Amino acid sequence: MDLKEKIIEVKSYLSQYEKLNQALSLIYWDMRTNMPSKAGESRSEVLEYLSGESFKMITSPKIGEFIKDLSQNKSEMNLQERRMLEELERNYNETKKIPKDRYVAFVGVCSNSELAWERAKKENDFEIFKPHLEKVVEFQKEFINYWGYKIDKYDTLLDKYELGLTTNKLDKIFSELKDGIIEILNNLKSSKKTIKRDFLFGNFDTKKQKDLSLLILEKIGFDLSAGRLDESIHPFTTNFGNKDVRLTTNYHEDEFTSALFSTIHEGGHGIYEQNISDNLENTGLQTGSSMAIHESQSRFYENILGRSKEFCSYLLPIAKKYFEDFKAVTLDEFYEAMNYVETSLIRTEADELTYGLHIIIRYEIEKELINGKITVDDLKGLWNKKYKEYLGVEPKNDSEGVLQDTHWSDGSFGYFPSYALGNLYGAQIFHKLLEEKPEVMDEVKNGNLTEITNWLKEKVHVHGAVYTPNELIENITGEDLNPKYFIDYLKNKYYKIYNIK
Amino acid sequence: MDLKEKIIEVKSYLSQYEKLNQALSLIYWDMRTNMPSKAGESRSEVLEYLSGESFKMITSPKIGEFIKDLSQNKSEMNLQERRMLEELERNYNETKKIPKDRYVAFVGVCSNSELAWERAKKENDFEIFKPHLEKVVEFQKEFINYWGYKIDKYDTLLDKYELGLTTNKLDKIFSELKDGIIEILNNLKSSKKTIKRDFLFGNFDTKKQKDLSLLILEKIGFDLSAGRLDESIHPFTTNFGNKDVRLTTNYHEDEFTSALFSTIHEGGHGIYEQNISDNLENTGLQTGSSMAIHESQSRFYENILGRSKEFCSYLLPIAKKYFEDFKAVTLDEFYEAMNYVETSLIRTEADELTYGLHIIIRYEIEKELINGKITVDDLKGLWNKKYKEYLGVEPKNDSEGVLQDTHWSDGSFGYFPSYALGNLYGAQIFHKLLEEKPEVMDEVKNGNLTEITNWLKEKVHVHGAVYTPNELIENITGEDLNPKYFIDYLKNKYYKIYNIK
Repeated sequence: MDLKEKIIEVKSYLSQYEKLNQALSLIYWDMRTNMPSKAGESRSEVLEYLSGESFKMITSPKIGEFIKDLSQNKSEMNLQERRMLEELERNYNETKKIPKDRYVAFVGVCSNSELAWERAKKENDFEIFKPHLEKVVEFQKEFINYWGYKIDKYDTLLDKYELGLTTNKLDKIFSELKDGIIEILNNLKSSKKTIKRDFLFGNFDTKKQKDLSLLILEKIGFDLSAGRLDESIHPFTTNFGNKDVRLTTNYHEDEFTSALFSTIHEGGHGIYEQNISDNLENTGLQTGSSMAIHESQSRFYENILGRSKEFCSYLLPIAKKYFEDFKAVTLDEFYEAMNYVETSLIRTEADELTYGLHIIIRYEIEKELINGKITVDDLKGLWNKKYKEYLGVEPKNDSEGVLQDTHWSDGSFGYFPSYALGNLYGAQIFHKLLEEKPEVMDEVKNGNLTEITNWLKEKVHVHGAVYTPNELIENITGEDLNPKYFIDYLKNKYYKIYNIK
Repeated sequence: MDLKEKIIEVKSYLSQYEKLNQALSLIYWDMRTNMPSKAGESRSEVLEYLSGESFKMITSPKIGEFIKDLSQNKSEMNLQERRMLEELERNYNETKKIPKDRYVAFVGVCSNSELAWERAKKENDFEIFKPHLEKVVEFQKEFINYWGYKIDKYDTLLDKYELGLTTNKLDKIFSELKDGIIEILNNLKSSKKTIKRDFLFGNFDTKKQKDLSLLILEKIGFDLSAGRLDESIHPFTTNFGNKDVRLTTNYHEDEFTSALFSTIHEGGHGIYEQNISDNLENTGLQTGSSMAIHESQSRFYENILGRSKEFCSYLLPIAKKYFEDFKAVTLDEFYEAMNYVETSLIRTEADELTYGLHIIIRYEIEKELINGKITVDDLKGLWNKKYKEYLGVEPKNDSEGVLQDTHWSDGSFGYFPSYALGNLYGAQIFHKLLEEKPEVMDEVKNGNLTEITNWLKEKVHVHGAVYTPNELIENITGEDLNPKYFIDYLKNKYYKIYNIK
């Protein structure tokens, strides 16, 4: 059989695997958005069963043969085919190391743990979640033993989301980021500027917030005929192919920005997925380059665009149409309120500047937890201690503290750094965009983001996972990931807002 | 291996089959309620793939062995075990007759056909749907050839929904039903009674309709923590076990009753599914006894209860709270308006009396279509002709004519008679209920349906498919299905409303 035929055979197999995983993702999406409360147990069983089938497919000897056959033809392969083989090999080898019954058990533990987290957050009680989280952490440690590790156990988890990332590399990046943030924060202390933002709090009818969210989504380039916006406790994005991309948000009647920026954030993820090339279907590459690159897009739309003066200038008149409270607000007031800097408790609602500290706290805690230096019992205390130390704030309850994020409930340890790296990637890409198209932000004032989205589509989105994150940032900007761009961006923006010379 | 162990083994296998089918049902539900328009094609592929897997599981040689093993122990089995074996055998043998590739192709054709029907109905154009329907009909005929038939091809389809039902039997039942309806209709013509119902038409905020629907659902006994209410073009009920039962309805801003009675109808299906015993999990019997028995419950809640004077007495003050328009309406006016008899175009909105004629029209058309006496080309003309002849009305467009129902789009030929049989079963069961508990309707005035729902639960719901429809009606009422009870019920109710002596 020649290479072409073999590739067709592999893709045909992968297409079945892909369909099964689309089904799984949809069932999971439904669990988080729609499922009635009594169905948790039976839903977990469905997820376990299908995950087991998915496990069987990707660890099947057939995949081993595909890899062997394709590897013999590497020299004839084009880039996409080589990357397809690489990813297939990685997925096959990593998954095969885990015993199937343990994998399936983990899926069940996670789905119960997520529901327990939802209950715990609602009832403001970490104790409800704790026994579930303990199981999840034990599974993480067990899996790391299967996968193996060189220096730090946590490296194995980082690598899952960002190929080749290690604590060693990340410590340096985060140290530079932390120093930058602290420097800026210290400088802002000398500012006499007062920023009003009382008008962002009040009573904002959720139906109107929803209408506004949908309008803004379409405006930034999300295709609602190939996607949806729903509600869930913790906003997330999932997709089944590039023609059914689903975002969720979470409306708060008492304030204006939370749902809106969650929507724009998830919209950034969604636009990425929708724009990935059809040609990558059934290659395993019809997905983001890495989770940090994914977050670079969501954080880009949320902050660099969404909180820009140009976008505020477009948004304010619309906001005035929806909500009386903005009637007397000027553009400067609106823009400044959107970018008010304050050390605070909730990551997803943190300003752009202090956001990185929230991530660094989680990163430090996860490293210790995964390396067994602390246990789940220590989490709450350590969380509160670090928030006090880094941000000067203390949670009054579990929901605004250790329970605020969903990530640990489904075992996404190692994911949080992606958000901060996303900020760095995003700023570096934005710097390049402005170099190539210095006037590009002007049109944003009219709500026209087409040129920006098209540029991102061409540079980032269409390629899916054909390039690794390192290759992608090098291709676009001509250099490796460099925190300087983000720190410069922060200085530039916030010194201006706070009148720092 | 002894019988007990074998049963455990079979149930364990069936539990996997059940999980796969729950996944399929959920994906299908999502297609009808949530899926973005561009995802139709990829969704069909997911449905095809999983249906193929489901086909493989139920036609596996393993099932053949189970059947052989269990059959040797029939004498030791209890009723539930025997029925489990019977249903397994039936499912296995029927499915095995169809080649897998044809089964999978049919699933794909149906999912595309359903989406085409939605478009066609929206755009009011039968031509959009016609080529899809032609394929569906061809598949039906092909499948009948695999399954075989004795006298009439259509018998094979009837038997799918109502075990043992034939056109021969049904012709007699429907002839008696038709005569009864015509007799009553003729008598009503002499009535001088005028019934106002203008207050049922106007402007009814759909958000309020939704709140009211949810309130009424809970009142009649549907558990919203084990189910949901959503929207779709054609209302339907689906479920994934008995703890996740999903209803849909369809709100019309310009009138009051359509969504409400759709909700109560689907609520009847939903209550049945929620009440089926947990013990029947993974036996293949955790489902209704037949589709006609299922419809007996939905039509019972919708009409016998929902359109009773007692229920109207409960509903009217609530309706007044939601909608100003009802302020001056008296109970008699409300009750009579709810039961206004008029030959009309839309089955789901037809009154209880003329409803049967809508079914008989569909039954007659389906028989001819399946037996090749007419083609899809003839459908529209024949539909309009029969509506003129039986009901004296003519559709002005396809949406209120041949396109009104979704059933043909997914190949549910043979289903429609279930609705009319449901009315007959329902009235016969109601007659028995009143014999046993003559005062039972009194509490309905207070919105208390507990005693009725508990009685139905004990007599019908908990048993799932342990009894065949014939056994069930015999167990409950001591006799076979008898149309007389429904005709008597109609005479009694409508002669009173229309002052016929």
